[in-house]
Amino acid sequence: FNIVVLPGDGVGPEVALAAQRVLTCIGDIYGHRFDFAEHLIGGAAIDAVGESLPEDTKAACLAADAVLLGAVGGPKWDGAPVRPEQGLLAIRKAMGLYANLRPLQVSPVLAHRSPLKKEIVEGVDLIVFRELTSGVYFGERTRSKTQASDLCVYTVEEIERVARAAFQAAEQRRGKVTSVDKANVMETSRLWREVVTRIHAEEYPQITLEHALVDSMAMHLIRKPREYDVILTENMFGDILSDEISVLGGSIGLLPSASLGADGPGLFEPIHGSAPDIAGQDLANPVGMVLSAAMMLRHSFKLEDEADSIEAAVAAVLASGAVTADLGGELGTVAATRAIVDAIR
Amino acid sequence: FNIVVLPGDGVGPEVALAAQRVLTCIGDIYGHRFDFAEHLIGGAAIDAVGESLPEDTKAACLAADAVLLGAVGGPKWDGAPVRPEQGLLAIRKAMGLYANLRPLQVSPVLAHRSPLKKEIVEGVDLIVFRELTSGVYFGERTRSKTQASDLCVYTVEEIERVARAAFQAAEQRRGKVTSVDKANVMETSRLWREVVTRIHAEEYPQITLEHALVDSMAMHLIRKPREYDVILTENMFGDILSDEISVLGGSIGLLPSASLGADGPGLFEPIHGSAPDIAGQDLANPVGMVLSAAMMLRHSFKLEDEADSIEAAVAAVLASGAVTADLGGELGTVAATRAIVDAIR
Ligand SMILES: CC(C)[C@H](C(=O)O)[C@@H](O)C(=O)O
Ligand SMILES: CC(C)[C@H](C(=O)O)[C@@H](O)C(=O)O
Repeated sequence: FNIVVLPGDGVGPEVALAAQRVLTCIGDIYGHRFDFAEHLIGGAAIDAVGESLPEDTKAACLAADAVLLGAVGGPKWDGAPVRPEQGLLAIRKAMGLYANLRPLQVSPVLAHRSPLKKEIVEGVDLIVFRELTSGVYFGERTRSKTQASDLCVYTVEEIERVARAAFQAAEQRRGKVTSVDKANVMETSRLWREVVTRIHAEEYPQITLEHALVDSMAMHLIRKPREYDVILTENMFGDILSDEISVLGGSIGLLPSASLGADGPGLFEPIHGSAPDIAGQDLANPVGMVLSAAMMLRHSFKLEDEADSIEAAVAAVLASGAVTADLGGELGTVAATRAIVDAIR
Repeated sequence: FNIVVLPGDGVGPEVALAAQRVLTCIGDIYGHRFDFAEHLIGGAAIDAVGESLPEDTKAACLAADAVLLGAVGGPKWDGAPVRPEQGLLAIRKAMGLYANLRPLQVSPVLAHRSPLKKEIVEGVDLIVFRELTSGVYFGERTRSKTQASDLCVYTVEEIERVARAAFQAAEQRRGKVTSVDKANVMETSRLWREVVTRIHAEEYPQITLEHALVDSMAMHLIRKPREYDVILTENMFGDILSDEISVLGGSIGLLPSASLGADGPGLFEPIHGSAPDIAGQDLANPVGMVLSAAMMLRHSFKLEDEADSIEAAVAAVLASGAVTADLGGELGTVAATRAIVDAIR
């Protein structure tokens, strides 16, 4: 398997290395060969070659079997003519990664670390399907001396495909989709609601579909997170809501994501950002990145047993308390990764 | 004082009545005369005259000393050609209410009802300044067979005036403003950040200003809500974030808001919506509306003592447990209002 690794900025390189170690261990045990090719993205690419997504990075990603990404961005590039995040947005678009999957399961051993009460977060098991290649992220922008504008556009087809992905996931889960929009204000949201309702009626009538407004959803996700199974939403709302729920499990450092397109390689990255304040100090939690690698095995390579093995090892390590500082532990990134590798063996 | 009352839909009429009772009591005690004139808005107006903001409602609001609003909207008008919310957006725009103030103080007696841990929410004391007359709420919308669009526009002047309002509030509080945007993606956010930074440097250098991205803010507000004093943000982000934090205090039914313009009357409404499921059953919590009336006394009429008196009465009633079902109490809307009136006397 040819895997492109985009370490990126901040703690990105440290966690990317952790994922490679874990995958190499999986390869040894199960007899797979994972070849890793590192390429530049984000601030690291700006520093090296002056652009956030160099042509050869893009070509390598498109030709790979899958892509692992650490993190991009940091205050270092504030006010720079090119922004690190542009590289991330550009690679999402170039690879056609329209569905961003952000699963959240609150581990019983860590529920007590949540800012929410244990009885509210215990047993939470949901997944966000965030549309990732359209909306206000990719609309036309204008700027003049006196004003600025951003355009949010959604086509029927863009909504259909991510809706189908969410309904399909719900079929394998508890059979419920909550679609989030702001249909009382936005035209794109009204289209969103119509299209999701139609795809549901025509193709997935056995799934339970409910609609929620983004503002009340921001409340409900804190008051009763256990009620949700699959949450389907557009790009910006997905960005905000999935970050909001990322605190439920006790640390954002735990959470993986997968970004998938129609076919072609997927991209797998932790939810956490580049965390420049702790970069290079062996402090980052490798779990989010390692679980992203497990998602890669499952979604891109159909290696279910191997993915299960990583997830079981992570669960065991979390239960054992062999964790990084964000979870109250004493291990560094390298030692926490070694604990996961040992648990897999 | 001439007060226009817009009861609106769902529980709106019940809570609007509660506010009038409390104000009448204040008038008796302090020797003011409050004249209330009821007008139609939202779904109630659609049902009665076919439009969500009738001309005479608008004229009455513009001529009033202040406006009290209950709530608008409900599933009854889903799919209706005119939407109840349009009336609310139209009156905000017509009255030029560019600053929406949403204070949140977590009452010590109710902190245990929060979905968050007591030690996280205890002592929270913040206020959101949400821009209310621009952004994606008021931009051009398009719709065709295959796609829809919403335009988000901000002018320099629109950002300046709400930023000034937030900095002025911070001067009277703990001296800190957190401005929230998505400057790594949106052009309007980059303009927002520039203008807020300039107004700060030129006019309020003694205030501490920090910038946060909306996605990480959605996290921080749950992890460390006590760190915030004044939160300044654009219309849509303000809608989402202020609803998110509304759960911190244990019930959204407790929270007031004030919408203010340059001069002219302000509009005061609870944060909660029309709650059609409990409408007409004497179940709604009157506190959010009553505290909105207190904000009216303070901001529009400069009646500080009178506002203090309402707020103290509400605090005493909450502490005594004379509360509605959303707070675990047994009182209805009418009885809970009477408890507040008695406490004022
Ligand atoms: C870095 C930023 C552009 C990005 C986004 O907003 O999509 C990030 O927040 C994310 O969620 O992956
Ligand atoms: C009813 C709706 C249009 C409104 C808004 O989004 O502004 C409401 O959610 C609010 O926050 O006052």
